[in-house]
Amino acid sequence: MDIKKMLVNDRVKPYLLKARYGIEKESKRVDLSGNLAKTDHPKSISMRDDHPYIQRDFSELQMEIITPVTETLEEQFNYLAAIHDVAYRSMGNNEMLWPLSMPPQLPEKEENIMIAKLKSVENVLYRQTLSNSYGRRKQMICGVHFNFEFGDELIQALFNTQSEIKDYRHFKTEIYLKATRNYLHYRWLFTYFYGASPSSEKNFFEEDSLNEAVRSIRNSKYGYTNSDDVQVSYSSIQNYLSDLSSMVKRGLLSEEKEFYSPVRLRGGHHVSDLADHGIRYIELRNIDLNPFEPYGIGYEQAEFLHLFLIYLLWKDEGENCDEWVKMGDFYNDIVALEHPLEHTQFEIEAKNMIDEMEHLAAILNLTISDTLFVHLREMLMDPSKTLAGRLYKESEKSSQGQVATSIAKENYKKLWDKPYQLTGFTDMELSTQILMFDAIQQGIQVEVLDRQDQFLKLQLKDHVEYVKNGNMTSKDSYVSTLIMENKTVTKKILQQHGFRVPKGKEFNDIEKALRSYDIFSTKPFVVKPKTTNYGLGISIFKEGANYEDYQKAITLAFKEDSSVLIEEFLNGTEYRFFVLNDKVYAILLRVPANVKGDGKHTIEELVIEKNRDPLRGRDHRTPLEIIQLGELENLMLKGQGYRADSIPKVDEIIYLRENSNVSTGGDSIDVTDEISDDYKKIAVDAVSALGAKISGIDLIIENKDVPAANNNAYGIIEANFNPSMYMHTYPYKGKSRRLTMHIIHYLFPELLQSQE
Amino acid sequence: MDIKKMLVNDRVKPYLLKARYGIEKESKRVDLSGNLAKTDHPKSISMRDDHPYIQRDFSELQMEIITPVTETLEEQFNYLAAIHDVAYRSMGNNEMLWPLSMPPQLPEKEENIMIAKLKSVENVLYRQTLSNSYGRRKQMICGVHFNFEFGDELIQALFNTQSEIKDYRHFKTEIYLKATRNYLHYRWLFTYFYGASPSSEKNFFEEDSLNEAVRSIRNSKYGYTNSDDVQVSYSSIQNYLSDLSSMVKRGLLSEEKEFYSPVRLRGGHHVSDLADHGIRYIELRNIDLNPFEPYGIGYEQAEFLHLFLIYLLWKDEGENCDEWVKMGDFYNDIVALEHPLEHTQFEIEAKNMIDEMEHLAAILNLTISDTLFVHLREMLMDPSKTLAGRLYKESEKSSQGQVATSIAKENYKKLWDKPYQLTGFTDMELSTQILMFDAIQQGIQVEVLDRQDQFLKLQLKDHVEYVKNGNMTSKDSYVSTLIMENKTVTKKILQQHGFRVPKGKEFNDIEKALRSYDIFSTKPFVVKPKTTNYGLGISIFKEGANYEDYQKAITLAFKEDSSVLIEEFLNGTEYRFFVLNDKVYAILLRVPANVKGDGKHTIEELVIEKNRDPLRGRDHRTPLEIIQLGELENLMLKGQGYRADSIPKVDEIIYLRENSNVSTGGDSIDVTDEISDDYKKIAVDAVSALGAKISGIDLIIENKDVPAANNNAYGIIEANFNPSMYMHTYPYKGKSRRLTMHIIHYLFPELLQSQE
Repeated sequence: MDIKKMLVNDRVKPYLLKARYGIEKESKRVDLSGNLAKTDHPKSISMRDDHPYIQRDFSELQMEIITPVTETLEEQFNYLAAIHDVAYRSMGNNEMLWPLSMPPQLPEKEENIMIAKLKSVENVLYRQTLSNSYGRRKQMICGVHFNFEFGDELIQALFNTQSEIKDYRHFKTEIYLKATRNYLHYRWLFTYFYGASPSSEKNFFEEDSLNEAVRSIRNSKYGYTNSDDVQVSYSSIQNYLSDLSSMVKRGLLSEEKEFYSPVRLRGGHHVSDLADHGIRYIELRNIDLNPFEPYGIGYEQAEFLHLFLIYLLWKDEGENCDEWVKMGDFYNDIVALEHPLEHTQFEIEAKNMIDEMEHLAAILNLTISDTLFVHLREMLMDPSKTLAGRLYKESEKSSQGQVATSIAKENYKKLWDKPYQLTGFTDMELSTQILMFDAIQQGIQVEVLDRQDQFLKLQLKDHVEYVKNGNMTSKDSYVSTLIMENKTVTKKILQQHGFRVPKGKEFNDIEKALRSYDIFSTKPFVVKPKTTNYGLGISIFKEGANYEDYQKAITLAFKEDSSVLIEEFLNGTEYRFFVLNDKVYAILLRVPANVKGDGKHTIEELVIEKNRDPLRGRDHRTPLEIIQLGELENLMLKGQGYRADSIPKVDEIIYLRENSNVSTGGDSIDVTDEISDDYKKIAVDAVSALGAKISGIDLIIENKDVPAANNNAYGIIEANFNPSMYMHTYPYKGKSRRLTMHIIHYLFPELLQSQE
Repeated sequence: MDIKKMLVNDRVKPYLLKARYGIEKESKRVDLSGNLAKTDHPKSISMRDDHPYIQRDFSELQMEIITPVTETLEEQFNYLAAIHDVAYRSMGNNEMLWPLSMPPQLPEKEENIMIAKLKSVENVLYRQTLSNSYGRRKQMICGVHFNFEFGDELIQALFNTQSEIKDYRHFKTEIYLKATRNYLHYRWLFTYFYGASPSSEKNFFEEDSLNEAVRSIRNSKYGYTNSDDVQVSYSSIQNYLSDLSSMVKRGLLSEEKEFYSPVRLRGGHHVSDLADHGIRYIELRNIDLNPFEPYGIGYEQAEFLHLFLIYLLWKDEGENCDEWVKMGDFYNDIVALEHPLEHTQFEIEAKNMIDEMEHLAAILNLTISDTLFVHLREMLMDPSKTLAGRLYKESEKSSQGQVATSIAKENYKKLWDKPYQLTGFTDMELSTQILMFDAIQQGIQVEVLDRQDQFLKLQLKDHVEYVKNGNMTSKDSYVSTLIMENKTVTKKILQQHGFRVPKGKEFNDIEKALRSYDIFSTKPFVVKPKTTNYGLGISIFKEGANYEDYQKAITLAFKEDSSVLIEEFLNGTEYRFFVLNDKVYAILLRVPANVKGDGKHTIEELVIEKNRDPLRGRDHRTPLEIIQLGELENLMLKGQGYRADSIPKVDEIIYLRENSNVSTGGDSIDVTDEISDDYKKIAVDAVSALGAKISGIDLIIENKDVPAANNNAYGIIEANFNPSMYMHTYPYKGKSRRLTMHIIHYLFPELLQSQE
């Protein structure tokens, strides 16, 4: 099998970079001073042992972040970032994640290192066993595991170029075995660049084993390794499995999964899957936490690993497999224990390998970051630019612990900066981001089926739910949303069910509308196009209208739509009721864009000040919008006898807009607890009459202290089938309502049952 | 109470023409020769005794058509027409409706007139009683009942102009009582214009009671009336009710409902409702079938009745109520028994009344048909223009029976002309029209909530279903339709469930799409914009493509949409599977617009010939579309070496289009029975994977005789959440599939249960 030739085959080339990735990343929870946290795993995170994204490793303090499998590194890092957001904000304000593989100062007594309080007795017992074999201190070392699978299309294309191996699974296994052996042989190169555990903190070593800083304690013999007796062959999958099982039989390993090789061969969830299915992917385990990346591993670093694996597949290997692997261990230990600022003794080999890799990338047309080889060469020439070198140098100014604490604090600040956003997915709608956050926290698997379209697949065990735009779900029927989309139909149905809606008529003919002047002229009424939603073409006559104005309004409305509604105008305040599964979860009052005078500042200054609120931004990327001072606002000011440079009196409220939309700078004020139950019942019953389960229904209430049963106490304006949720969660004033979480519990009621 | 003054009040005027209407119209079923039918009520119509639209009256042969209550006469006549369509087409090809009030020749023996075979024993017994009291012959007289209610806004406005009567219901009852008494007094005017039962046919009278033709046998003492002893006062609702109940006690009436006044006072379904609620509306019963209107009553006639009632409300009445009413009976009998071509002896009074009515319409600004008063004056001046006059004159040429038979035949032809349409609603989508037809037939109440938006409310007893576009219902979840709307999401989900979909990728970036050339270049593939549906921007490469063509195709597609799909192209034939509730109900093959040569005619002539099919029309108003010979078709011909004036050989098929859409003249061919169950199962399972209940799913099948389980036997192209239904019901070739009826049974499963 001439892999070199196979890789440059034109039928193979298009698929070379096809792959699937997954990351597991452990780190320790610490308090804001950098001391190990004394708390339990955060309760807000679902405590299931099989949480797909956030688990505990050996210790209760060790948070493990697990990404889903993705087919691009971009997606992989999006998830890594997003799950970090969830982990951080779930820990609360007083904790952060330690950015180093090596733990901060440990308790003097090893038994004070808390074993993870898992639900499964078996899982706790296993940790007990590890604790006995390796000691709890070593278990506190953290790292990154990088799961890597060559794209099936790639393996298939490679398979088709040869006829030597007839069985596809066998072929695939051979591919992975070669890459693995070479990885084990050459992994010292990775250790040189990305090793990042130069020193340990107090109480890690019982006695100081290492006097000098190194590149990677974790990847050296002082790290977390099996005893030297544990030897497993990578010459074939049969040998690998039989060696493993003999190690277990001989008591050198408690279970197969205790085998801590830098590369673990994976067939599926269990070691036995290897025998049945062959190798499906490999797990690279020799990755120290990168202190300079907020998520413990950098994008370029992952790209390096991918390219490195293709290179290792291409590169010749030694004839004696076991010897070749063993030599790798030897080289790696040397490099791991070199001083971080020292040039490596394999510098020439390293340079050759980098050159070869770059050449290979060129002949295979692989597209990778422009800077990768620049950085690799820089690190090679100047060891202080390697991760270990950088960390060591920075620590010289203070101490490694202090450097780590201040890095942790910076990450902490960054991850708390915009709590309404989910990093990695900030181009999506805010409500969808918040829903994804909650789903991740609850241990529900989140797959983005269509990013532009806000289309998610949520899965909890076998239970799948599809969600679009955060609240378009399987719970609402198609026709109920179509009813809500159509104002005339909504009104007819509500009226037939005895609710008060503004009386009115739909016109498809301008002449007929004009002839109906008599019916509307003397009462408050509004003329509006049937479907437009942006306020265009709407005229309000609060005290009736003369025929001329009536005619103008109708002409205006017919310019926007071929159907026009003329409706009774209802006096009062408009409230948005968010109804979910026959319950009101939030009520919002929306107030037009405004500022409050202080007798000192101009309106313009007050606007600038109010816009400083981090909740205000642009284009729905934040819960509130920047207040503008454009043409419309200036007109509105003029109408009130003001200009932008006027100075309003103390406590005087100046409105800058007629409309109360949050999207034009309006304030959102939660009033859920201030509205009485009878109005909530009206909202719930009306939504139910429309056959809907999720709806934002707008009620005009003349006086909320008057019972809803009173004559004309309320009127229903419209019902929205995709009501904004984030504005209830991050209101300008009042209590936050986590509607996305209610949606999740509605979609997955089993979550609440399992908590009981 | 000065009603005259009240009516001209400005607060009253806008509402004067507000009203609610309902029509009941009986007619006899006859065979195509005009003889009484010998068949039972059609089985295709739901046989429920309480069918809201189509019932049997006294006899099994008497079809009664009942419209729903509407607020405009336009809607009223739409329903009247639509229900006639359903009644006619349900009777089958061998029957029609007799257009006269007087029956055709009756059987010699009265007992051969079949009493309606109703389910309820009580209803049958009641008819038995009537048969004993009046004889079956008289029961065969048919007519129209016009139910009329003044708009609530009108009565409310009138009520508000006065303070004499404090109780609203009482006020309303007085309004109706005045109109009723005046109607009874002046109804001779209506009899003059619209009386239309001049002669009887054989065996109606046991002995010839009438030697000469009259205006209206039905409205004379020879018609269907109570015995002279039955006298009821209209002076107050109390007197009316107590008189009625005393008539029953004295055995003059078997029940209150046997009181056959020309005006029946209605409070609700039962006479007793009058005591509780007062008069809610009145039922005018003195209307002969209008032989010259296909539905038994004309629009102008209904307008006359409305205006007449307003006029009668306005007009002074005599002081002695009972005397006043009795005088009316006397006058009416005189007019009814006048010869149809004779001037009426009340001509001067009639002229004055018409003048008064026209004046009133003017001062009240009532908008009515311009021609109404023209026609009334014509009829007044020339009795041969009244209905009775016209019918009498036409009958002179042959016989009344022959005239009636030929009128019935014309109606029959008209109502069968476009069996896919529902008269009165032909501006709506074809599938919606067919669904409404089926609903009416099944006795489901149909309300059009929004005509332009194809939004229906269907109701069977308390069970309400809303339907838009014929198949958007409460059965599909919102998200499943959103899934089907999104091609990328549809494909991902189908793929995850193990179905074969064309492999491919979505691109949002033209550069990335270009870079993926290698992946697609060598295999058949298609480039298409993500959301467009009209074939714009689609390029198909059946044998791969060079880079230049690839680039062109991608640029083209990105012009149509910001997202572009590049997909594997599947070879085979595309079939549309219509899946409903986990079952395939129809499979359609769509063939591009084509003609078949005969060796004689040019392509243009063949197209003209093929377009003669009554199923072909324009703008989706017919099941098939006219084949065009425009630019595209001529190009397509040119590509094959033809022109429009070429003469194709015998049996040669000439295609005029590349695409197979029915909307561009394609043929639809039902192949439901030709596709094996394994493919049907694929369609059902795929729709189920999408969570959908109603879907038109498109499968490409390479060879339908090869099992679906074979490798690449099929591929799924897309699933449609609003699949066309009419194309399956009226295919170009093959069996008709009444999908709308399946939808109705799916929405209302109780229909099937009640049939069992």
